[in-house]
Amino acid sequence: MAEAPNVFSKQYMLTAGPTPLPPRVSQVMAEPVLYHRAPAFVDIYARCLERLDGVFQTRNPVLCFAASGTGAMESAVANLVAPGEPAVVASCGKFGQRWAELCDAYGAATTHVEFEWGERVDPPRLDAAISGLDSRPGTVYVTQSETSTGVVNDIRALNEVALAHGAVLCVDAISGLGAVDLPQDEWGVDVVVSGSQKSLMCPPGLAFASVSERAMALAADGAGVHPPSRYYFDWARIADGQAQKPPNSAFTPAVTLFRGLDVALELIFAEGLGTVFERHAILARAARAGIEAIGLERFGADDPDANVITAASLPAEIDGAKVPKLMRDRYGVTVAGGQGHLKGRIVRIAHCGYYGGFDIVVALTALEMALRDLGAEVERGAGAAAAQGVFADAGTVPEPVAG
Amino acid sequence: MAEAPNVFSKQYMLTAGPTPLPPRVSQVMAEPVLYHRAPAFVDIYARCLERLDGVFQTRNPVLCFAASGTGAMESAVANLVAPGEPAVVASCGKFGQRWAELCDAYGAATTHVEFEWGERVDPPRLDAAISGLDSRPGTVYVTQSETSTGVVNDIRALNEVALAHGAVLCVDAISGLGAVDLPQDEWGVDVVVSGSQKSLMCPPGLAFASVSERAMALAADGAGVHPPSRYYFDWARIADGQAQKPPNSAFTPAVTLFRGLDVALELIFAEGLGTVFERHAILARAARAGIEAIGLERFGADDPDANVITAASLPAEIDGAKVPKLMRDRYGVTVAGGQGHLKGRIVRIAHCGYYGGFDIVVALTALEMALRDLGAEVERGAGAAAAQGVFADAGTVPEPVAG
Repeated sequence: MAEAPNVFSKQYMLTAGPTPLPPRVSQVMAEPVLYHRAPAFVDIYARCLERLDGVFQTRNPVLCFAASGTGAMESAVANLVAPGEPAVVASCGKFGQRWAELCDAYGAATTHVEFEWGERVDPPRLDAAISGLDSRPGTVYVTQSETSTGVVNDIRALNEVALAHGAVLCVDAISGLGAVDLPQDEWGVDVVVSGSQKSLMCPPGLAFASVSERAMALAADGAGVHPPSRYYFDWARIADGQAQKPPNSAFTPAVTLFRGLDVALELIFAEGLGTVFERHAILARAARAGIEAIGLERFGADDPDANVITAASLPAEIDGAKVPKLMRDRYGVTVAGGQGHLKGRIVRIAHCGYYGGFDIVVALTALEMALRDLGAEVERGAGAAAAQGVFADAGTVPEPVAG
Repeated sequence: MAEAPNVFSKQYMLTAGPTPLPPRVSQVMAEPVLYHRAPAFVDIYARCLERLDGVFQTRNPVLCFAASGTGAMESAVANLVAPGEPAVVASCGKFGQRWAELCDAYGAATTHVEFEWGERVDPPRLDAAISGLDSRPGTVYVTQSETSTGVVNDIRALNEVALAHGAVLCVDAISGLGAVDLPQDEWGVDVVVSGSQKSLMCPPGLAFASVSERAMALAADGAGVHPPSRYYFDWARIADGQAQKPPNSAFTPAVTLFRGLDVALELIFAEGLGTVFERHAILARAARAGIEAIGLERFGADDPDANVITAASLPAEIDGAKVPKLMRDRYGVTVAGGQGHLKGRIVRIAHCGYYGGFDIVVALTALEMALRDLGAEVERGAGAAAAQGVFADAGTVPEPVAG
């Protein structure tokens, strides 16, 4: 007798970073490697820098590093904080806490305004915390999309708070940039950092910092601090290279990743940045509706901009840590569980980057199957039905430009 | 009438970083991206860590960073140098100078023992310089293969000097590791750093630091320094993650580059590390013989280990800056010219990584053609003839394992 077929052998990687890649992005990285000083690469590099300005919605130079996103975060601390000087961090999850760890590592007098994981950072409370300090902080560090919980903070309001106190706001937009609108120049945000492997539809390994003139000047003032304790992440060094005609990277750039980025940014602008944001919003609505239809509670603040990741609270009566494991090992669908103290308590459905409507259907269906396997009472197809309803209301099953 | 065909439309990238990639390395990076916490990637990551130990010839953990090679160099300064404390740099080219810039950026009391570009670092002179200091330096920084000149320093002798003074030697082996033997544990070298894009046959974007127990302890002592001014490049943080079972990267790793590295390391061990070194030695002999047959002088010390890059001095009567430009734009052969004050004075033929005998023939032939175009008197085929002679003596046209 023939062995039973495995109908779940196909693999679906539906996580919030790395995210799935458009096939054209994957393929271009397999082309022969280019010398970074030769025109064939320099053209690609220059085009990426120009298109990054478009995604960051800025006229700033977007400084590029071969690094994980944390490297760009570190640059915003290493270039702006001096030992003993005040810095404020407002966090509501694991990645917000990283700002505080970075500020501490660089010796800042850190004020850490912590919110519960799942809450949003409250602008009035941040304002009050800053007002209560003995000396004005030069920098305030916040997170746009808190990947550990799915919460998206109100960057516009938080920036107004920072500006009112004369401080530079630094935003970790690693998972949110390109998913949720963040018009940096229009809002007057000084520093926005991001990474390649989330909404920008590339593999991990590139990190970005869009730095305003004001923040660059503040970093240059701080250069009087001895020692500067930065080199690879030194903004002035990177900016000097990128400002040359043609642009010149200070260190050997990750050339294959830039080739991927070039194609990914082309796809983003072929779809249109506004359409990309709207696609993310529809996918998030479908994920929320599906989770509720399955009978789970959505985890995190009831936040209209939470279009990057949708987190669901898992029923207390099942072993929650088994849910993402079963989804992956039994059904081939890789999603992320909770981090830190949320481990086993939530599951996270990602929809940032190269995601379309059927990815949400797959994630919801695999979630139902895993929950049923663990004994939860879940109606088959409830998630898919609810997602379909959202797509029908939106008049579309949103898909990214076929890459 | 048909347009004249271009017999030089094929492109040959023959530089010393990025270097050409084995096709299998390129192709594996185009496979669907993996989630870094899923077993499919963790297995690859663990295998890479194990094989890196083999290439570094060490039992140390080889700490991995998503970064250019300079990032790993910075880690060796950020983790070992404290402001005001003495550090010694011995340099003989552009990349050696980078060690001094890094030490200065971290506030070391830097003693920079400089040698002419093209010379090797002289161990007795380094010894005398250290002996002349008021206080013992904790660290000495040197370069194995100085990519700007082709010189390869005698790391074994330099390490003996450092050890005699009780100092930790940190070696930049970015271009040399995997081309020239550097048995770290046998020689007792404390810190060796490298990058993915040279002899390791991968794209740029991964950097490595192999750190001895003694150097890790020194870094931990220095952790008492406040502030540590390091986070992304903090050795203890990276080592803690890699030491977990299974290993766990502290930050999102560059997953596509690790997939490439996994294949590249497999190819290196399929060929055999000793055979890889011997291949590099034969290619270097062929390049040297070819350059001399063309009538050029080899640039740099007469150094038996200079098996990474062969630099040739260009005749004073031609515009040397035009040589690599003509080779690339007219003949499709990309090689590197000189850097810094050597710009226009030398051309560098690389043979580190995925290089075989015919790459040397191509580079030498294109060099002859460019020199003749610029009016130099060069006998056609002299370089190829000399290279052939070397291969005949060696009994082989050395080629890497077909990847």
